[in-house]
Amino acid sequence: MSRSIDLAVIPGDGIGREVVAQGLKVLSAALPQDVKLETRNYDLGAQRWHATGETLPDAELDALKRHDAILLGAIGDPSVPSGVLERGLLLKLRFAFDHFINLRPSKLFPNTATPLEGRPDIDFVVVREGTEGPYTGNGGSLRTGTPAEVATEVSLNTAYGVERVVRDAYARANARPRKKLTLVHKNNVLVHAGHLWKRIFDAVGREYPEVTTDYLHVDAATIFFVTQPERFDVIVTDNLFGDILTDLAAAVTGGIGLAASGNINPTGAFPSMFEPVHGSAPDIAGQGKADPTATVLSVALLLQHLGHADEAARVERAVAEDLAAREGSRTTDEIGDALAARVSG
Amino acid sequence: MSRSIDLAVIPGDGIGREVVAQGLKVLSAALPQDVKLETRNYDLGAQRWHATGETLPDAELDALKRHDAILLGAIGDPSVPSGVLERGLLLKLRFAFDHFINLRPSKLFPNTATPLEGRPDIDFVVVREGTEGPYTGNGGSLRTGTPAEVATEVSLNTAYGVERVVRDAYARANARPRKKLTLVHKNNVLVHAGHLWKRIFDAVGREYPEVTTDYLHVDAATIFFVTQPERFDVIVTDNLFGDILTDLAAAVTGGIGLAASGNINPTGAFPSMFEPVHGSAPDIAGQGKADPTATVLSVALLLQHLGHADEAARVERAVAEDLAAREGSRTTDEIGDALAARVSG
Ligand SMILES: CC(C)[C@H](C(=O)O)[C@@H](O)C(=O)O
Ligand SMILES: CC(C)[C@H](C(=O)O)[C@@H](O)C(=O)O
Repeated sequence: MSRSIDLAVIPGDGIGREVVAQGLKVLSAALPQDVKLETRNYDLGAQRWHATGETLPDAELDALKRHDAILLGAIGDPSVPSGVLERGLLLKLRFAFDHFINLRPSKLFPNTATPLEGRPDIDFVVVREGTEGPYTGNGGSLRTGTPAEVATEVSLNTAYGVERVVRDAYARANARPRKKLTLVHKNNVLVHAGHLWKRIFDAVGREYPEVTTDYLHVDAATIFFVTQPERFDVIVTDNLFGDILTDLAAAVTGGIGLAASGNINPTGAFPSMFEPVHGSAPDIAGQGKADPTATVLSVALLLQHLGHADEAARVERAVAEDLAAREGSRTTDEIGDALAARVSG
Repeated sequence: MSRSIDLAVIPGDGIGREVVAQGLKVLSAALPQDVKLETRNYDLGAQRWHATGETLPDAELDALKRHDAILLGAIGDPSVPSGVLERGLLLKLRFAFDHFINLRPSKLFPNTATPLEGRPDIDFVVVREGTEGPYTGNGGSLRTGTPAEVATEVSLNTAYGVERVVRDAYARANARPRKKLTLVHKNNVLVHAGHLWKRIFDAVGREYPEVTTDYLHVDAATIFFVTQPERFDVIVTDNLFGDILTDLAAAVTGGIGLAASGNINPTGAFPSMFEPVHGSAPDIAGQGKADPTATVLSVALLLQHLGHADEAARVERAVAEDLAAREGSRTTDEIGDALAARVSG
């Protein structure tokens, strides 16, 4: 447990700034008095790119490296070509800091909206691989823009990369009451990557005899997400499948306004980064309409990661209570205040 | 409109045999008296593979080529290693016959189950690319089975392949009342393939000024599939995203027991192939429990493809009426009989 936290903050674009402010408010309220919180803001995102053409200069990457953790709001704006900030900033951070665990819990809190009939009991966590798969930027295009264009995207998968995320997922499953781990891939088509995942999944599983396992193709998994989400406990999956499944998971558990994530490097070699799953939502930015809850839940993951498990639990409880009590609409700030009050109270 | 149909039938594995029998029953009932239907069965699938080690010998591929169309039940059995039949038979057919349009309509019929609250009005069609993307079998693994293993999967995309499916999707959207086309990809990460798709989507769109277009990342698309499925009319997407999205679409529109598909080569150079989206469901095979409706709706797509639009509409209407009247449980055969009766009646 750290007695001081040196936090890098990347508010980013759109509602990112608004929600990060609330996240910090709740973080301060949650921390014990004797834990010193220092924050430093990093001005990165669309504005910076427009002004300077930079997405993430080396100097700032170096500076970020020295923090204990990073809190990120949201990155992206329609004025920036698709991919520039995602690849040049967000994914660059995930890769540079070797965030191989992209942790995304999904829980249907009482009194929150779900499009699913009968409000199934949803409480699972997706352990998404964060540094491999189709996200490595390995690909290109030939004769771009001509009728003879060929474009490739290469999914890279290594035993090294798969084993570490699979191990992490087993450990998480083993620590939960239900002890169930589901591997999601598409090994009937993507046979090379898929069989690598399956082999390692089976091999590591022999070290965890108490963990029940199963395997689902990604297409079938989406079916169960909406027809039987209660069947899931821990899911481990590849970078792209994890991206898709966690948005769907968010949609069935109160919406993207509640979905938290941690980009974690469990070795501690680099700072881990916590961010809501949602984007910068430029259509509602600056209007106090954004729900900061996803960011606040990401702060809970941050606290957990830094060894403040009690404080993390307190933040999660505050969110659950706040959601249970919600009626009418409140501003971003009001929700942040309410959560901070519950956390300190 | 063909005055005779020379149909290849691949019943395949598990419930494939049962549902195909009902599909043929309804097809016979639907066809005008003066249209001659000839069928030839092809014994392909798990049993054949166990017996001979063959998935799809050249001689049979050649023979299949000479039919007007193919009706396929389902392929796959747990006793066969994952990928063998998928790649060696199902995908081999789709690729050999250049089925670049994988057509998957999704409609929520009255009186059918949906996990979505409020029964949204769902009626869209996914035009899934069928011959490119991560399905090309382009990949491999090095040092397989060792801790130093590296496995790749290459998504191949060509202007040629993307343009033809995008054109088809625009034409379909243009022929529907709402005239709306959504491109789904992940062009903020898979920038090479994604930008190729987007460029062609925009370029072809200029020829269809009446078609309204939009673009969604695949992760966001899954959210709308469960929160706002009524927003979709026609969707065009890549092979893998289409695979994932159409299972999710099936889940929200009555389940996989109702989801039909056509693997279409619109040029007529090769026979098109029609199959339910569901798998072989070995757990319920041989028990008369399978719902043949997905196969029957695939037969409607087959009729449409062969120029029998009225008969196709009649089959679809029969399904809608049968679903509306459903109570209690019926056997596979009983459902087939009921549908055939409605179609002829
Ligand atoms: C913005 C994008 C690059 C990112 C991803 O694909 O990982 C986002 O969708 C997410 O899930 O965090
Ligand atoms: C069985 C499998 C190869 C196939 C696919 O991935 O295309 C199936 O899921 C489908 O959607 O038809």
